[in-house]
Amino acid sequence: MAKPVSIEVWNPNGKYRVVSTKPMPGTRWINLLIQQDCRLEICTEKKTILSVEDIIALIGDKCDGVIGQLTEDWGEELFSALRRAGGTAFSNMAVGYNNVDVNAANKHGIAVGNTPGVLTETTAELAASLSLAAARRIVEADEFMRAGLYDGWLPHLFVGNLLKGQTVGVIGAGRIGSAYARMMVEGFKMNLIYYDLYQATRLEKFVTAYAEFLKANGETPVTWKRASSMDEVLQEADIISLHPILDKTTYHLVNKERLAKMKKEAILINCSRGPVIDEAALVDHLRQNPLFRVGLDVFEDEPNMKPGLAELKNAIVVPHIASASKWTREGMATLAALNVLGKIKGYPVWFDANRVEPFLNENAQPPAASPSIVNAKALSLPVSKL
Amino acid sequence: MAKPVSIEVWNPNGKYRVVSTKPMPGTRWINLLIQQDCRLEICTEKKTILSVEDIIALIGDKCDGVIGQLTEDWGEELFSALRRAGGTAFSNMAVGYNNVDVNAANKHGIAVGNTPGVLTETTAELAASLSLAAARRIVEADEFMRAGLYDGWLPHLFVGNLLKGQTVGVIGAGRIGSAYARMMVEGFKMNLIYYDLYQATRLEKFVTAYAEFLKANGETPVTWKRASSMDEVLQEADIISLHPILDKTTYHLVNKERLAKMKKEAILINCSRGPVIDEAALVDHLRQNPLFRVGLDVFEDEPNMKPGLAELKNAIVVPHIASASKWTREGMATLAALNVLGKIKGYPVWFDANRVEPFLNENAQPPAASPSIVNAKALSLPVSKL
Repeated sequence: MAKPVSIEVWNPNGKYRVVSTKPMPGTRWINLLIQQDCRLEICTEKKTILSVEDIIALIGDKCDGVIGQLTEDWGEELFSALRRAGGTAFSNMAVGYNNVDVNAANKHGIAVGNTPGVLTETTAELAASLSLAAARRIVEADEFMRAGLYDGWLPHLFVGNLLKGQTVGVIGAGRIGSAYARMMVEGFKMNLIYYDLYQATRLEKFVTAYAEFLKANGETPVTWKRASSMDEVLQEADIISLHPILDKTTYHLVNKERLAKMKKEAILINCSRGPVIDEAALVDHLRQNPLFRVGLDVFEDEPNMKPGLAELKNAIVVPHIASASKWTREGMATLAALNVLGKIKGYPVWFDANRVEPFLNENAQPPAASPSIVNAKALSLPVSKL
Repeated sequence: MAKPVSIEVWNPNGKYRVVSTKPMPGTRWINLLIQQDCRLEICTEKKTILSVEDIIALIGDKCDGVIGQLTEDWGEELFSALRRAGGTAFSNMAVGYNNVDVNAANKHGIAVGNTPGVLTETTAELAASLSLAAARRIVEADEFMRAGLYDGWLPHLFVGNLLKGQTVGVIGAGRIGSAYARMMVEGFKMNLIYYDLYQATRLEKFVTAYAEFLKANGETPVTWKRASSMDEVLQEADIISLHPILDKTTYHLVNKERLAKMKKEAILINCSRGPVIDEAALVDHLRQNPLFRVGLDVFEDEPNMKPGLAELKNAIVVPHIASASKWTREGMATLAALNVLGKIKGYPVWFDANRVEPFLNENAQPPAASPSIVNAKALSLPVSKL
């Protein structure tokens, strides 16, 4: 980096030097670090994605830990640079860590943190938000209104779907898929069909109990079933939301053939990973079926879209904002900061990375632990007791 | 009308001549009319709002009944023209009938129908859809993505609100307000505060039972309260949805002073009537409070917006589509057609205009009755038994 790099320095005389490659939401994470004797440097460069060279310059000669982003390439080069600077801790501000070479981190004895436990509800609410926006054509209706095209009420103007009594399909009923299913079932009295390799017993229990609640209160109960195949969901559901993990078995899970099995007026939602859908096939399908609608938070060639997608009125496209609520993003920042701080201070690793509530209470000191270190075992780090 | 008018004629040899001033969604309403010996003429002119002269030309010399729209001016001129043509029946395709001079209709012995009983859920779902779209900034995020501005994930990009645990405020807890409240409470585990002149006992019973359901299933129960003033709702709620009737007491109900009482990051939704909000004051408030967001389906000077509204990123604006679901709009068309048909055939008026399910069952003949005639009493029309 020939040019100077813009940084914001907090608590310049702190004993431990911690670098955050990006400004992160909220201030609690900053306060927690400076209270425990860290000098914090936040990179404020305008460029969206920092290169490996940029980050090596940020690390410098002496650095105890770094908070980084999933858009950065954390491999041998960065971990060896961090090690040379005396660092022992890194945390992604993300649940996923596809961008991290954990073996390289292990080799240099550097802890790798992530931030699970705070994304479920926010991600499921985005899937619900896209579902409702697609059902009622909010984006195209807003564009029409803003363009001054509205000149009076018409019986056929932006007619959409009533959710009540329709069927919601969930592919992948893990934590997020189950939370989304409950929002649509309990909020809009939709019937549920889901597909997962494993039985979602907790979800089934809730939906069963909710159907009984409706019945007891004199209302039509909702129904649910576990599908024996993904195609069964595609054929029966009016709104389908994808929540699988991305691996070889789910790459292009929704392709041309599967799109053809869905109802002509179905709605498809994807807040999981872009490559789960064959996006070029989806563009074709949307062109040929103007009543088919889609809500996408992720893309196959992110940050780009496949040609044609941006021109389609029956698509809603948002820039990977599934975890973008104030509560979640501030929580992620706090967890990432505490992962790094815990390792620097020699704290143990928290006993359950999905039960992180004690770290998020703004009115109390967080536990003396790293909330979530993915290579704790490989580094033989101590684990806290409950 | 000097120029010829475009119409579509169904069952040209039918005994009764019925005119619809607009094409309406679905085909069931058409079939029901032609099965019962009506010649149906549907005006297919492209202009959005027909003038009184246009409609007089459509009525012609012989017309038994007309299905009209709330954008048309149904007063002395039209009812006397319909009377002269031998007509006895009119129905709005709408619940409201501000556009109808009922006294003029009474004078000419013409029944005036409307279409209640099918709008509640669809309207409440639009309010929910706008709430979620505003909470997650769907429209501005979509615009950003389509404009090609997304170049990588960022911690601060379109950060919105997590609904779970926040408070939803409802002003006016009638049928639609109560349905909306339940969607937000049961779907998103929001706490409820409502204001209404009358106690919403049915809503309170449901929310209480739902809180008990959550508790019984090991989850944090939601809370609710009836506010003693509207200002209490404005001060406490994170999302506020307006569902009052429009009259002198609710004109500019939300004005500059009341906007100032709301939280700086609150969300305001209006799917009721435009003049309930002082729209010019709202534009000012949105300009001064970029974190305040609004979702509007109705406007004070509809079809126009107050200057500046269309340029604001923190507003979502849609063209009066609260009742725009396929189910509701087809239901409205069916009810309007059956109102007219029932009067022509001398059927009685249905005993409860809000319990119209028997008319909407596509697999059965509808009851021999007019579903909803607003001046049935004035015209001394017979009423059906249950």
